[in-house]
Amino acid sequence: MATNSDIRTSELKEPVDVAVYLFTRLKQMGIDSVHGVPGDFNLVALDYLEGCGLKWVGNCNELNAGYAADGYARIKGGPADSHASFAEYVPVVHIVGTPSTISQKNGMLLHHTLGNGNFHVFADMAAHLAIEVAKLIDPRDIAAQIDHALRECFLQSRPVYLTLPTDMVGRKVEGSRLRTKLDLSPHKNEPEKEDYVVDVVLGYLSKAKNAVILVDSCAVRHRVLDETHELIEKSGLPVFVAPMGKGAVDETLPNFGGIYAGAASNPGVQDRVESADLLLTIGSVKSDFNTAGFSYRTSQLKTIDFHSTYTRVRYSEYPAVGMKGVLRKLIDKLPKLNIQSVPTPSQKKMPEDGAAGTSAITHSWFWPRLGNWLRDGDVVLTETGTANYGVFDTRFPKNVTNISQILWGSIGYATGSCQGVALALKESGGNRRTILFTGDGSFQLTCQEVSTMIRHNLNPIIFIICNNGYTIERFIHGMEAGYNDIQNWNYRHLLPAFGAKEGGYKTFQVRTKDEMQALLGDDNFSKAPYLQLVELYMPWNDAPAGLCVTAEASARNNARMLETS
Amino acid sequence: MATNSDIRTSELKEPVDVAVYLFTRLKQMGIDSVHGVPGDFNLVALDYLEGCGLKWVGNCNELNAGYAADGYARIKGGPADSHASFAEYVPVVHIVGTPSTISQKNGMLLHHTLGNGNFHVFADMAAHLAIEVAKLIDPRDIAAQIDHALRECFLQSRPVYLTLPTDMVGRKVEGSRLRTKLDLSPHKNEPEKEDYVVDVVLGYLSKAKNAVILVDSCAVRHRVLDETHELIEKSGLPVFVAPMGKGAVDETLPNFGGIYAGAASNPGVQDRVESADLLLTIGSVKSDFNTAGFSYRTSQLKTIDFHSTYTRVRYSEYPAVGMKGVLRKLIDKLPKLNIQSVPTPSQKKMPEDGAAGTSAITHSWFWPRLGNWLRDGDVVLTETGTANYGVFDTRFPKNVTNISQILWGSIGYATGSCQGVALALKESGGNRRTILFTGDGSFQLTCQEVSTMIRHNLNPIIFIICNNGYTIERFIHGMEAGYNDIQNWNYRHLLPAFGAKEGGYKTFQVRTKDEMQALLGDDNFSKAPYLQLVELYMPWNDAPAGLCVTAEASARNNARMLETS
Repeated sequence: MATNSDIRTSELKEPVDVAVYLFTRLKQMGIDSVHGVPGDFNLVALDYLEGCGLKWVGNCNELNAGYAADGYARIKGGPADSHASFAEYVPVVHIVGTPSTISQKNGMLLHHTLGNGNFHVFADMAAHLAIEVAKLIDPRDIAAQIDHALRECFLQSRPVYLTLPTDMVGRKVEGSRLRTKLDLSPHKNEPEKEDYVVDVVLGYLSKAKNAVILVDSCAVRHRVLDETHELIEKSGLPVFVAPMGKGAVDETLPNFGGIYAGAASNPGVQDRVESADLLLTIGSVKSDFNTAGFSYRTSQLKTIDFHSTYTRVRYSEYPAVGMKGVLRKLIDKLPKLNIQSVPTPSQKKMPEDGAAGTSAITHSWFWPRLGNWLRDGDVVLTETGTANYGVFDTRFPKNVTNISQILWGSIGYATGSCQGVALALKESGGNRRTILFTGDGSFQLTCQEVSTMIRHNLNPIIFIICNNGYTIERFIHGMEAGYNDIQNWNYRHLLPAFGAKEGGYKTFQVRTKDEMQALLGDDNFSKAPYLQLVELYMPWNDAPAGLCVTAEASARNNARMLETS
Repeated sequence: MATNSDIRTSELKEPVDVAVYLFTRLKQMGIDSVHGVPGDFNLVALDYLEGCGLKWVGNCNELNAGYAADGYARIKGGPADSHASFAEYVPVVHIVGTPSTISQKNGMLLHHTLGNGNFHVFADMAAHLAIEVAKLIDPRDIAAQIDHALRECFLQSRPVYLTLPTDMVGRKVEGSRLRTKLDLSPHKNEPEKEDYVVDVVLGYLSKAKNAVILVDSCAVRHRVLDETHELIEKSGLPVFVAPMGKGAVDETLPNFGGIYAGAASNPGVQDRVESADLLLTIGSVKSDFNTAGFSYRTSQLKTIDFHSTYTRVRYSEYPAVGMKGVLRKLIDKLPKLNIQSVPTPSQKKMPEDGAAGTSAITHSWFWPRLGNWLRDGDVVLTETGTANYGVFDTRFPKNVTNISQILWGSIGYATGSCQGVALALKESGGNRRTILFTGDGSFQLTCQEVSTMIRHNLNPIIFIICNNGYTIERFIHGMEAGYNDIQNWNYRHLLPAFGAKEGGYKTFQVRTKDEMQALLGDDNFSKAPYLQLVELYMPWNDAPAGLCVTAEASARNNARMLETS
């Protein structure tokens, strides 16, 4: 019997299954792998992946899959297949298999539901964490829904959530749409408005005697790094990065000055930035952990902020004038600037060994020295905790990417993300290394994703900072409290337990400065021929200076009302 | 300077800190341990635990902590400190440290937030999954909010969600309230209504020639097991359990007939139940996995349903007439019944070895034989997957509890829950064993909670069914599909990797029926002196009969619209 939908199907020029449409679009956007866990409401869709040129990763659990997809997306610069990703501006496409539309209409008491007949709960919850929730329930709308969601995901650089009922997977939609790739070009500013703003900016810039540039994470996420680099080079202005913008700027440039994070800045940087007569910020995010507890002492009267959807000059806001166009035009019109010879703080000299009398590896000793071992093209993941702050003191070679999760700040992220990063780098060919720094407590949350790395023959170098617990929490509250301790593991024994084969991995224990220097001098280690795990022992009560400053500010903030009551 | 709140504090008869109030209430309800992960918004509250007689467990991640608290609550019968818990009627108190009320009012850009100034997102999301969300933001309300939430949590046997801002932890509330324990007695039925319903039920019961009783999970969760057992004994009626009710009835009783799960029932049971002229159900939950894909062939015209908040006789519903009172009165008034000698299906005989020609351990061979090894008082956790269905065929000794998650059905649950169960049994003294059966794929989701078991010297016996993947998914769709495979681990090597000390644990590999019989005959193993882990190898394509029937129904249901379009 011909149903209504059959009639519609016959009117399609090139009917393709919904799953084919969705997966082909992802492939067109540069995605090669989909992260996730199989479940009975997505199994039929998974059958389509291979035919669309996509690989199924098969993570150990859903949390880890979300983190891995986030890391994958950060490298691919496009959507992959989480809370974290929303806060951190990462384009993740979350595809959720659901019960069939018939079961939902009938309110059946199915597993994976709350048993109350409400099939909208999870999509409703996800709506808080995605810029768009698209429920794919009518074949007439599905192709347009998918295209719109994927385009917004990419352009806004934030997650979207698609629900795909089991009975929609094989329904037909118009395949001829796939002949045209999605238009992912950014929204253009209105030219007259844009010219106006650029002239205002140029006016301030030409009068400034002592301007500086501050680059932050949204410059990365909203894809204005090319414009940013051109502006830095052409202007010659001193440039600094916020912690979330670490890696966005070539740190070998003579005008690169280091990390600005208010009170937790690199030495000399706070004075230099805060005494500037003009501060140009690109993609700034003033979150607590990115500003060492809101410790900026800059004045908005001396600031111009470039954002993805607006520009702000002092207190004048220019909505719908995004930085992509403004920066381009600014570079083109840039006159020779009047740059005063106020020295940029030098971050090149290796700092003194703050713990010279001891063989123990301290943060102040380790992180500056790490820079010499890093190579062009490395991707360095730093977990929330000591690593995130330690890396402030590491000067990167060219083209080193730093992946962290400073705004959302959920421990466990970096290990899951590391799987996605290592896979994305492998798929892109070349020889870029994936290097993870995580704490022992953090690693325990998501440790099993190392199994997925083994399964896919990935070769990250994993440093686990073994210091007996949640050090970042100790510095906020409860330095010696039992709740900040953890069960100590023999981390290096996990690799064979997770199925790594003899000869296909290597593990290390490093307890002294000499051992660390020997390891970093080991060519085979540095070549990253296979997965390697390093137990890096550090004193339990040691932390990078930036962490101490931020943790004190956090503790003060948590206690604020207590003091006044 | 005296603030308003100081003035109020001075009016309190016995001022106590909010955290003391909350934790003392939990202790009064029988809770000895709190599960979770430390975070900077809950650290100050954690300082109060020990002083209130509570132990901090310190789980490896939040998901696992939720599962562990769920298992702990199922044993304690009261609230402990998840989606799962809502669907499955488990009283879990979810306490969430949040930024201070001042930070929230100022809309500060804090970590662990979405960076959009909305501090209500997570509580709004939780409202879908909790019967009550209480935001503790005003000391004048907090004691009453806590008391109300804890009482509803217990009585409705469902999760509640409390948000505790950092600056409220030490504010003062009225401590004299703590002298009176919370009234946790169930809502009483209106006597006239209750008498009416009991008479109606007795009318049908006295006319029935062939009545049977079906006990399901809400009999456990809503605490009517005493009444249920009395009714079974006094009436002498044949009694059956649904899968979610497994363990609720003494399976050594002569009138116990086995599992009723529609088409996936124990042999002979489907005919016996479906041919009864009266079916009394106690706490029934007709979810897909509990009914083998909605395969009941019972008639509501022959059914009386006893629920926590209502009674239904055929199609007549009696709202607000809950089973606690009705069952009590029914037992008291019960006349001698006219029980026809229709035989109850015997579940005592050991079934034939369905795979007699092979040494491989098959489900049909293993599960019936497990019953002989189990002991009075054991708690058996069965993970969603083969274990959940295999246990249909295990006849339990007296007082064996089965913990599973059949409605919600999320793999990974059982391993996390096992930690909470083992801890609760340890705290209750005695010698009850915790025995976990999980699949290899399922175990991988939450494996690190074994570390928490080691840390707290717990001694569960963990059987990991090693069969190379997600067997339940294979039977639903993609029997040989790569996405249903997993990375194979050397599970027994995880214990030393997680820090288990030589002599403080034992591991086993079991691949044949003979090896399994030898292990179950090993007295030291059976005594459970310390944590033990068994790799139990089974053929990748073997599954219990009940799983096969249910999986087929699931696949049919997922595909339903496809067939008609």
